[in-house]
Amino acid sequence: MHYFYNFRRNNTNIINIMKIAILGTGAVGTTIGDRMIALGHEVMIGSRTNTNEKAIQFVNKHDKNASNGTFEQAATFGEIIFNCVKGEFSIAALKLAGNGINNKILIDVSNPIDTSKGAPLSLIPELCNTNSLGEEIQRTFPNIKVVKTLNTMWSTLMMIPTMLKDGDHTNFICGNDQEAKDKVKSLLFEIGWKEESILDIGDITASRGTETLLLLWLRIWGATIGTFSFKVVN
Amino acid sequence: MHYFYNFRRNNTNIINIMKIAILGTGAVGTTIGDRMIALGHEVMIGSRTNTNEKAIQFVNKHDKNASNGTFEQAATFGEIIFNCVKGEFSIAALKLAGNGINNKILIDVSNPIDTSKGAPLSLIPELCNTNSLGEEIQRTFPNIKVVKTLNTMWSTLMMIPTMLKDGDHTNFICGNDQEAKDKVKSLLFEIGWKEESILDIGDITASRGTETLLLLWLRIWGATIGTFSFKVVN
Repeated sequence: MHYFYNFRRNNTNIINIMKIAILGTGAVGTTIGDRMIALGHEVMIGSRTNTNEKAIQFVNKHDKNASNGTFEQAATFGEIIFNCVKGEFSIAALKLAGNGINNKILIDVSNPIDTSKGAPLSLIPELCNTNSLGEEIQRTFPNIKVVKTLNTMWSTLMMIPTMLKDGDHTNFICGNDQEAKDKVKSLLFEIGWKEESILDIGDITASRGTETLLLLWLRIWGATIGTFSFKVVN
Repeated sequence: MHYFYNFRRNNTNIINIMKIAILGTGAVGTTIGDRMIALGHEVMIGSRTNTNEKAIQFVNKHDKNASNGTFEQAATFGEIIFNCVKGEFSIAALKLAGNGINNKILIDVSNPIDTSKGAPLSLIPELCNTNSLGEEIQRTFPNIKVVKTLNTMWSTLMMIPTMLKDGDHTNFICGNDQEAKDKVKSLLFEIGWKEESILDIGDITASRGTETLLLLWLRIWGATIGTFSFKVVN
């Protein structure tokens, strides 16, 4: 019994239960948090204060393995941290996380949408084309290992890739630290991503490519009905 | 015989021989020109001068239906005009085309790459995120009908879509004029694009999405081997 509690078999991996921090209490953060708990991990969801209503709702709906705290408490708790804070507030939230983030893997799923402008939505000018949110986070916090992934799709699809074409669509991954990317890939396998659907496109500057895909995503969203995603065909 | 010369049957369409102008004598322009001639159309390839060596080579390799001239001569000749001039020179080339472009359909396959900067390549800052080359052309030349398409892939793939997965990948199309888009779609069918692979994503501002896809394309190009393209999975 103890064995089954601490380890679970998943495809080719035996995976340890991990402590996961989720920064951000929006739809993306709670969807990821729910899935991590369903997989057996322990989750602390972080926000500006430890009295955030959405965070408390999140904790209350799970009978175990869910807790909440400040950004700093969550980051300190987590072995792996998900950045699910809106792009425009991500750097500020990570600053509030203080030393809790040091030497950790940060899975950045956020996009730098410029919410100050109207439709059609665009990216924050300083964080596109020759820069990106992923890079900006890595540059601002050189001690963390930023891995950008999952940011080109709906949050439900991030966590249940098989809901579309049995998972036969592409999830891009990039970052400067190969070991960190490998660890994140293991977690992606656990979530249900197939190896052949995960495409490593290099260092963190490749975030420029995946973040800006949002501009095309929005237009496809406007032109089609139902869930969609991208697949690199080769 | 006369019937077969003037009309050809292609899938569901009977298509008139058209006069096609190609602006630009690079790999994209000549690849498109070759294909248009192979389909039976008459092509004039345009450049700054009518003594351009690549244009003369293009004409010489075809035994009929190929000619060359200035941007203005080519634009005047064409019923449909392809913009295959590099993004940074496109507006200038179209200005040189003068009145020849008025009221014509312009198929813009170009991307606004900023060649003044090193790797990783980026887009011209004024022509991305909140603007695009497609829009800039439409704004500068309100009398032409700009249709942006084919700009998210290799030129060989533009013209022979079936070389990859029997054509089962996505070609985006956008523009403000529905009739112009429909006419371009007919030409795309003739080239070999299937209806289900052509995705209309709206007006010309959607060029922001497809042009910026170049940033991701470049990273995938760096990370994979061989021909690839994008498919919208839904």
